[in-house]
Amino acid sequence: MISEEKIQKYNDWLFRKSAYDMALSIIMTDKMTVAPIGGSAYRDARTAYLSGELFSIVTDPEILEILREMKDDNDIDPDLKRAAYLYYKDAMATVCIPKEEFVSAQEIFSKSYDAWLEAKTKNDYSIFEPWLKKVIEIRKQQYEYRKSDMDLYDQMLDDYEPGMNREKYDVFFNALKERLVPLIEKVCAAEQIDDSFLYQEYDIEEQKRFSNELLKYLHFDADWGYQNETEHPFTNWVCENDCRTTTKYLLNNVASAILSTVHEVGHATYEHDCDDKYDGMILSEGISSGMHESQSRLFENYLGRSYAFWEYLFPILQKHFPAQLGNVTAKQFTDAVNVSRRSLVRTEADELTYPLHILVRYEIEKGLFDGSISTEGLDETWNALYEKYLGIKVPGAREGILQDVHWSDGSFGYFPTYALGSAFSAQFTAKMREEIDVDEALRSGHFEICIEWLKEHIHKYGCRYDADDIMKIATGREFDVNVYLDYLEEKYTKLYHLK
Amino acid sequence: MISEEKIQKYNDWLFRKSAYDMALSIIMTDKMTVAPIGGSAYRDARTAYLSGELFSIVTDPEILEILREMKDDNDIDPDLKRAAYLYYKDAMATVCIPKEEFVSAQEIFSKSYDAWLEAKTKNDYSIFEPWLKKVIEIRKQQYEYRKSDMDLYDQMLDDYEPGMNREKYDVFFNALKERLVPLIEKVCAAEQIDDSFLYQEYDIEEQKRFSNELLKYLHFDADWGYQNETEHPFTNWVCENDCRTTTKYLLNNVASAILSTVHEVGHATYEHDCDDKYDGMILSEGISSGMHESQSRLFENYLGRSYAFWEYLFPILQKHFPAQLGNVTAKQFTDAVNVSRRSLVRTEADELTYPLHILVRYEIEKGLFDGSISTEGLDETWNALYEKYLGIKVPGAREGILQDVHWSDGSFGYFPTYALGSAFSAQFTAKMREEIDVDEALRSGHFEICIEWLKEHIHKYGCRYDADDIMKIATGREFDVNVYLDYLEEKYTKLYHLK
Repeated sequence: MISEEKIQKYNDWLFRKSAYDMALSIIMTDKMTVAPIGGSAYRDARTAYLSGELFSIVTDPEILEILREMKDDNDIDPDLKRAAYLYYKDAMATVCIPKEEFVSAQEIFSKSYDAWLEAKTKNDYSIFEPWLKKVIEIRKQQYEYRKSDMDLYDQMLDDYEPGMNREKYDVFFNALKERLVPLIEKVCAAEQIDDSFLYQEYDIEEQKRFSNELLKYLHFDADWGYQNETEHPFTNWVCENDCRTTTKYLLNNVASAILSTVHEVGHATYEHDCDDKYDGMILSEGISSGMHESQSRLFENYLGRSYAFWEYLFPILQKHFPAQLGNVTAKQFTDAVNVSRRSLVRTEADELTYPLHILVRYEIEKGLFDGSISTEGLDETWNALYEKYLGIKVPGAREGILQDVHWSDGSFGYFPTYALGSAFSAQFTAKMREEIDVDEALRSGHFEICIEWLKEHIHKYGCRYDADDIMKIATGREFDVNVYLDYLEEKYTKLYHLK
Repeated sequence: MISEEKIQKYNDWLFRKSAYDMALSIIMTDKMTVAPIGGSAYRDARTAYLSGELFSIVTDPEILEILREMKDDNDIDPDLKRAAYLYYKDAMATVCIPKEEFVSAQEIFSKSYDAWLEAKTKNDYSIFEPWLKKVIEIRKQQYEYRKSDMDLYDQMLDDYEPGMNREKYDVFFNALKERLVPLIEKVCAAEQIDDSFLYQEYDIEEQKRFSNELLKYLHFDADWGYQNETEHPFTNWVCENDCRTTTKYLLNNVASAILSTVHEVGHATYEHDCDDKYDGMILSEGISSGMHESQSRLFENYLGRSYAFWEYLFPILQKHFPAQLGNVTAKQFTDAVNVSRRSLVRTEADELTYPLHILVRYEIEKGLFDGSISTEGLDETWNALYEKYLGIKVPGAREGILQDVHWSDGSFGYFPTYALGSAFSAQFTAKMREEIDVDEALRSGHFEICIEWLKEHIHKYGCRYDADDIMKIATGREFDVNVYLDYLEEKYTKLYHLK
């Protein structure tokens, strides 16, 4: 069994690493929310340097040796063994990259983010294109250093969702296409639901006041969380008791900030509710991007878009906006936030067409890495795919290719987990509904009953187990995409009175 | 002359150091504005660790040797020489402290801040008292390590204002007492000015909207600055193009947030307008706390409380608050924000009684370090001094001893610079008014004319020269406290129609 001295070294290392993780997390949140843009170059250079320090810590040969020993040691605490396995895997993916290249890449990713933001503001893809090209080249090089037998893009997919690759995603997306495309056709042909009242003018300060009540209902407590505003909503965390979400208010869309808030609080709650003993360790993090997204989607779609949720919250929202919503009922409001239509922007897409937005990104990423698609003219490629799958014309890059932040820092392989996570959450929710009265909890203002179930069956484990295992632990069976597709079919058939 | 190789080492060191300075600055701002309190313990331990890393960088023996050589080298660039001198001085004050003690002190200061915040919220000094005692002990120990011949408190005074000590401050404060106490008596006995309209209900969201226009007028540009909210307003910076200010809105006091904003933007502008070539170096920082405060006070009192300032801004403020200010004139408003009365809270004190608030703190600090005053019962001591100098009874610790953050992290010796800075700014303003038409600039919305003068005569130098030298460069003469006292006497004699 591994020596006490080595365990001590591991613990010291863990603390050191967590200090840099914390600093970089706070600096990142700061950059994306409030940091003055004029200071970007100064900050980015120094942030890259600190990332390099973290790189050196993560790839310290003495620690790698200890981690290797720990991960193969059957006599140590299984939590420690699992953590060592995960750290070792991460380190192996990093240590192969020359430090200098790693640091300069971090700086380029920061600058690329700024270029993306400028391009989006100016609705001009050409500002971002050279950066995107550069970021892709860097990512390719970084993955090549691994000298893996796996295809490059498969490696990226596996990083975000261990065990997944193009072959499995192709099966998954084909199942979606097969059942959702005809369903969407029917929905579009059916009598449409009036949701125009969602798109009146809703004073942003008043939206913020409602948001405070919503956060209270969701138990997003100021003691452990904070919500800020940003161009592209995200969630970030320092530790279990420090989880930050962001949202974006739109003057002419009252549902957008609400549903994005519920979504991000889903991510934050997952991090917050992990077993305390894992705090500061890799085990406290969500297992995979898909698992994380399953929790945010579960909050957003399966709870936040349910009638029971609005039975409680709609009368409160109504008080904030009597002129806009005085004559609307909770039922009409719920139907409206579930309306499905061909649309441009992923983060504001409805539950039914959402996976097709992901399909577009998945096909582009596959093409970018197998060489069949280029960054030049990628806005046109994007637009053509939106026309093909969503049946919609893209008026400009802002609502088109520039809408998402992910590619600016090279997060390729991430998008597909969004669709997968949505499918996971269907299965989790079905099980939760078997075991507790979700609707009664939501309508009576006891959201914590749902949180407790999720904590007990999913959140507390952090990434102690793989996604497959959690699925079995929580639902008693393997993942089945048809649970998701059955749910969508039933829901939209009923909502649109389809035959 | 020092070798190129050593200069290169110095530059690498400077960059490394600036990365940690940046991280700690952002983490500190984050903690004091938005960070969830539940994560404090986790963050504080890691922040202390990072401070320890910075400690190691600052006290690196090889660099100390290079700095020592540079500061004594008459052949190198004088800017470099000056920077080396200042870094060396800082390092010498730090290197004597055992690293372990330095790191644990940082963590205690963070926790003490949290205790102070809790005590203030609960209006209960006893929560903070044991922390204050601990912080004082730590500071004493840290200064004793220097083995200086100077008295402990004199060393602290010198750290914030090089060249100052108790003897000089006693002379300064005696001059203030001698002329201000009788002047304040006369003001209190005179016919009072009606300022009740300032204390109506002013919607905070509306105050924020006005604040955006105010920031524009002050040229506090989102490109290089950001304003947040906090319990105790402060200014912090990462580099010249990243300066953060904070403010605090009060529902029943419209002038408070406005004047604190103008004050903090004064600090931020000083940092922003330093010569670009000093960015990231110690030379870009303000010379001393007194010099920094002179710039914030100049903005707040000498510009922000002038009639010309309000000739431009009052009509705008009036539009935001027609019900409250519809029948008030710019002249009445200006008089109201200059009203002097015995009050409890330093940050909201008027220009005339302000130095007496500082006097109370100066006497307490002297007593805490010469042993004549104890932390036990310090709230009573505080209250007694407020009664003696300000003639006012303190109702509770929140508006009494707990009102200021400074002592929570051991910033002893800082307060006296506030009074000194106010006096400096009188002399700077007098000179500026000789050279440019300040009133015309303010009333016509050309605040940048004042900024330009300040940049040219003060800000651009950063801390290239000592405060004494800057005073001579900017005003052509030595500092004279009577310029300040004459100014106050003339202003308040006129305002209150004194004989």
